[in-house]
Amino acid sequence: MILRYLFGHPFDTEAVPNKPAVSDGPVPYLSVEKDGSSLSMTLSDDDVVYGLGETVRGMNKRGWIYVSYNTDEFLHMETTKSLYASQNFLLVTNGLRSLGIFVDCPGEVTFDIGYTKMDRLCIRPAKPDFELYLVTSAKMDPAAARRDVVHHFRRLIGKSYLPPLFAFGYGQSRWGYKSEDDVEEVADSYERMGVPLDAIYLDIDYMDHFKDFTVNEETFPDFPGFVSRMKDRGIHLVPIIDAGIRKEEGYCVYEEGKKNGYFVKDKDGKDFTAAVWPGEVCFPDVLSSRARQWFGSQYDVLLDAGIDGFWNDMNEPSIFYTPERLNQAIRNVAGYEGKDLDVNAFMRLRDEMGTLSNNREDYRNMFHDADGTKVCHDDVHNLFGFNMTRAAGEHFLKACGEGKVLLFSRSSYIGMHRYGGVWTGDNRTWWSHLKLSLQQQPALNMAGFLYSGSDMGGFMDDTTEDLMLRWLSASLFTPLYRNHAALGTRQKELYRFPHRSWFENLVQLRYALIPYIYAQFRKARDDDAMYFAPLSFFYGNDERVMQIEDQLMAGEDVMIAPVVEQNKTGRMVYLPEDMTLVRFRSFEDYDTVPLAKGDHYVSCALNEALVFIRKGHVLPLGVPAANTAELDLGNLTQIRG
Amino acid sequence: MILRYLFGHPFDTEAVPNKPAVSDGPVPYLSVEKDGSSLSMTLSDDDVVYGLGETVRGMNKRGWIYVSYNTDEFLHMETTKSLYASQNFLLVTNGLRSLGIFVDCPGEVTFDIGYTKMDRLCIRPAKPDFELYLVTSAKMDPAAARRDVVHHFRRLIGKSYLPPLFAFGYGQSRWGYKSEDDVEEVADSYERMGVPLDAIYLDIDYMDHFKDFTVNEETFPDFPGFVSRMKDRGIHLVPIIDAGIRKEEGYCVYEEGKKNGYFVKDKDGKDFTAAVWPGEVCFPDVLSSRARQWFGSQYDVLLDAGIDGFWNDMNEPSIFYTPERLNQAIRNVAGYEGKDLDVNAFMRLRDEMGTLSNNREDYRNMFHDADGTKVCHDDVHNLFGFNMTRAAGEHFLKACGEGKVLLFSRSSYIGMHRYGGVWTGDNRTWWSHLKLSLQQQPALNMAGFLYSGSDMGGFMDDTTEDLMLRWLSASLFTPLYRNHAALGTRQKELYRFPHRSWFENLVQLRYALIPYIYAQFRKARDDDAMYFAPLSFFYGNDERVMQIEDQLMAGEDVMIAPVVEQNKTGRMVYLPEDMTLVRFRSFEDYDTVPLAKGDHYVSCALNEALVFIRKGHVLPLGVPAANTAELDLGNLTQIRG
Repeated sequence: MILRYLFGHPFDTEAVPNKPAVSDGPVPYLSVEKDGSSLSMTLSDDDVVYGLGETVRGMNKRGWIYVSYNTDEFLHMETTKSLYASQNFLLVTNGLRSLGIFVDCPGEVTFDIGYTKMDRLCIRPAKPDFELYLVTSAKMDPAAARRDVVHHFRRLIGKSYLPPLFAFGYGQSRWGYKSEDDVEEVADSYERMGVPLDAIYLDIDYMDHFKDFTVNEETFPDFPGFVSRMKDRGIHLVPIIDAGIRKEEGYCVYEEGKKNGYFVKDKDGKDFTAAVWPGEVCFPDVLSSRARQWFGSQYDVLLDAGIDGFWNDMNEPSIFYTPERLNQAIRNVAGYEGKDLDVNAFMRLRDEMGTLSNNREDYRNMFHDADGTKVCHDDVHNLFGFNMTRAAGEHFLKACGEGKVLLFSRSSYIGMHRYGGVWTGDNRTWWSHLKLSLQQQPALNMAGFLYSGSDMGGFMDDTTEDLMLRWLSASLFTPLYRNHAALGTRQKELYRFPHRSWFENLVQLRYALIPYIYAQFRKARDDDAMYFAPLSFFYGNDERVMQIEDQLMAGEDVMIAPVVEQNKTGRMVYLPEDMTLVRFRSFEDYDTVPLAKGDHYVSCALNEALVFIRKGHVLPLGVPAANTAELDLGNLTQIRG
Repeated sequence: MILRYLFGHPFDTEAVPNKPAVSDGPVPYLSVEKDGSSLSMTLSDDDVVYGLGETVRGMNKRGWIYVSYNTDEFLHMETTKSLYASQNFLLVTNGLRSLGIFVDCPGEVTFDIGYTKMDRLCIRPAKPDFELYLVTSAKMDPAAARRDVVHHFRRLIGKSYLPPLFAFGYGQSRWGYKSEDDVEEVADSYERMGVPLDAIYLDIDYMDHFKDFTVNEETFPDFPGFVSRMKDRGIHLVPIIDAGIRKEEGYCVYEEGKKNGYFVKDKDGKDFTAAVWPGEVCFPDVLSSRARQWFGSQYDVLLDAGIDGFWNDMNEPSIFYTPERLNQAIRNVAGYEGKDLDVNAFMRLRDEMGTLSNNREDYRNMFHDADGTKVCHDDVHNLFGFNMTRAAGEHFLKACGEGKVLLFSRSSYIGMHRYGGVWTGDNRTWWSHLKLSLQQQPALNMAGFLYSGSDMGGFMDDTTEDLMLRWLSASLFTPLYRNHAALGTRQKELYRFPHRSWFENLVQLRYALIPYIYAQFRKARDDDAMYFAPLSFFYGNDERVMQIEDQLMAGEDVMIAPVVEQNKTGRMVYLPEDMTLVRFRSFEDYDTVPLAKGDHYVSCALNEALVFIRKGHVLPLGVPAANTAELDLGNLTQIRG
């Protein structure tokens, strides 16, 4: 059952396409301050709180305070409160009840989940203008009830984005590929190595001076020709698109946007100016349907060049600085010259530069024209990435049809899942981020984001060969399977590591699993169900599974329990029922071991991958190919559980 | 056996008080570049590399690259290469061999432990002037050989510091206690709560304008009287001492140091000036025995006031800025005004302020007078904290005798263990740091640092009640048992949390364990042995224990396996032999459960603590008291394993 409540005067986020009627009477389950300034409930000892999409910490969100306010945060620490996305859906569940809570609020919302008091959930929107949805189930079995609540919620928010098949292949990315030669070297090296490859991603360097919808003509002299040549080899080029449009006279995207009033305004009604990669930019006003349509149509220049995949970035939107703030800071800094600064003065000085980026005051000085309604950006901040991606997604549906264009985004809000997927942003070469990358998946799935994944091997800092191997192995079932790295970090294309055959075997195994992954993904999408789920969604009456944070159900037939710690050649695994362990060394070299319900120590060398098939279920296995286009989805063997 | 080799012209670090003769012939076990620029060896698959003291990641250091260069690093990430200390001892071990390696080098040393190549250990001193010690054992049993190598090494570097008994009691600290009233409120609150307390720490705010060896006379109008009143209540005040001496005319410590040439010089022979908490400071030249003696004697002003415990801080030495660098940066920043900065220019601008602190060039502009020899600080950087603490420790031995004064330091080098302990610096309220705090202990013990501990509950960021409970529980056997927090973070004195009785029971249990802890600590110290050890130091022929990273031997009789993850009510524990589990709810309320060798799921609620007694061993348990002075170390019951 779904109950809907209104507080204040909410802005319509369009997260929910077809809203049920507003419920009469008082809000059940939650204590509500009359003005909507807080919603709270007591958590019992055995309550688990799932959800909140792409946030830090475990699948069980209890014990921390999270703030939905989309932020370009380069440090994903345990104590980080905001990341790039706001996916305000929670599932509070124990053996007796399951309650789904969706706080549909486009501005800042704080979720205190047992942080201030261990047994108290308290939700506080910064401004009490929002809609509240409560979702329950009549199912008696706890696992069925959990699935049912999610199913009802997912039906409410609409079908998830469907990517093309190649989106499930292996992708290679790196900030720093600058030219045809760079890209070709990657393609050639993978081909020589015998590793399948479906996509090479282009980070900001493919553009002319970081200008959206341009290509550097010196380093890519014949871009359409190059795109076509790569596609002939089965490789899709996937360029990045940033939120900011460079302010440059004569740059047609800027000129068009300026002329037609498509940009976000400042408090004086002038085009709001911030600086990001290219220097000073304006932001498309993606809350205006006219501007959104215009921005979406800009992708044509790349679609026309043969591109069929994009990643939208910097769309929190990230701001390095605004010119006024920068110049004021520079003038302030000058005042410190020649002084003996005690620590307080020194900290103030450092803050002059340290508070330039993503400054809340700048967001308060941005204004949208939401089809006739002037809205302060800060109040609808979390909708920017959603609507930038919606601009693209709506255009692709119209121009190309469903399932044709790969599209995912860094920033998001529930509703965006109808138009594209997400990647989990600028993670690091931390083993804890490998584990986190798995823990985020079920929460993203609940919120509709079925197509998602992390930067394998870690984006920032230097990776190691063992981390790379374990990440590829742990992500074998993850829809987005992309190796990405930041400028200046250790190079980590797979052919650069000594144990080439191990990497080859792992990626080939991925391709052999794609028939299962794709079928299960489509099923989850068609059924408004989870693709990745906590074990408690299948085993409702097992107390142990409520605490398991490093095992997941992947589709309906298998459980994964990857090694996510360094220097381990095995791990403890908990089986909630009898299962068959498949220990893969390659798609054709594997052992199957029947294991009984309970705890098992399972060995897993760096060149191995563990898959557990549920009793009575079957894992179909295909034959790898050079890319997904060459996969024979019908030629399957079956491993029985 | 110990072999000693000389490379280049090493500065005598005094890590090894009585050096064995230099060995003839080539260096065994390692491939050595002739000039000493690198030492390397192949690691077999089953080699574990222990050691490196206080560094990030697991007990097994394989798979990362560490740089010994003492650094005031406020982010202890998995990818952080340098922390506050340099403890260059490694133990490379598998079932067949154990090799101890000590690189006695006072400057930067890089330890590439399977980072560049998974099977390669490579050690690179920045300058090839160092001594190398290789330690082996003739013992056949792998566990005995590991203990034996450490024992030989510890005998080489001299007996570890012995703290007074009160150092093992519970200590409360917080950056921000400013006055007698603040301190008294802490003491009163703990007394009312019934939680034992031995020490209240004074962070920088007790001083007059952050000047070492001064006390703010407004907020502490009668410091000796206050110290005495607190001591009558069984509470020791433990003030912080920073490395930098404020440059202030009329401040006698500064005037004396300046007059007598006791300060570190710059390249022009003038007193080197940096800025830290108080603004501009000079650093005592602790490599000069005269200056060291002088600096040590400064502690008298506090000893005379009744103080018998200190923590030495900021002694990497940390530098916020130097005046020249700051003013140059300010002038550089001014040049950016009014410009449209692309990302590269913006990053350069940010770096102007971002590279002010702990700048390597400043360390290169510092010079010591090492009893007649002029030495560039950068070449002996890692000795500063050691010798600042040695200055204090040598003075305390002379003035007060052994075992009388509590002393520990943030920065250190092997050799400092003879004069004081360490705490593991500015950690965070991360669950991963709770686990790290345990993993660092054996490595610190190997290097001689038996007296050590982390800031319980995490220093930076906001803690949670469950983290605080688990940290107190996991640290029950840790010698330094201190709750510390940074300014501006959530208050975390134990009486501020709802579940007071749980905290009370935990700290009382700590006091009941002190008879065991103190006896085992003394034994480890007297025998040059480990107090905390990896399981592989006791169970040599068990492959599983080589990978266990969250269980430790604490003394000779017990194993600990605390819960270090959030939202868990139990954990898997591996027993390498039959043991008796004691599940404590308080010192007098506990169950004992005999468990067989193997894997067990063991429940452990937030108010419980797990201790595993080895088969045939005994855990003595005392009766808690309000503080260690009131403990009856003879009144013991015994729990049998």
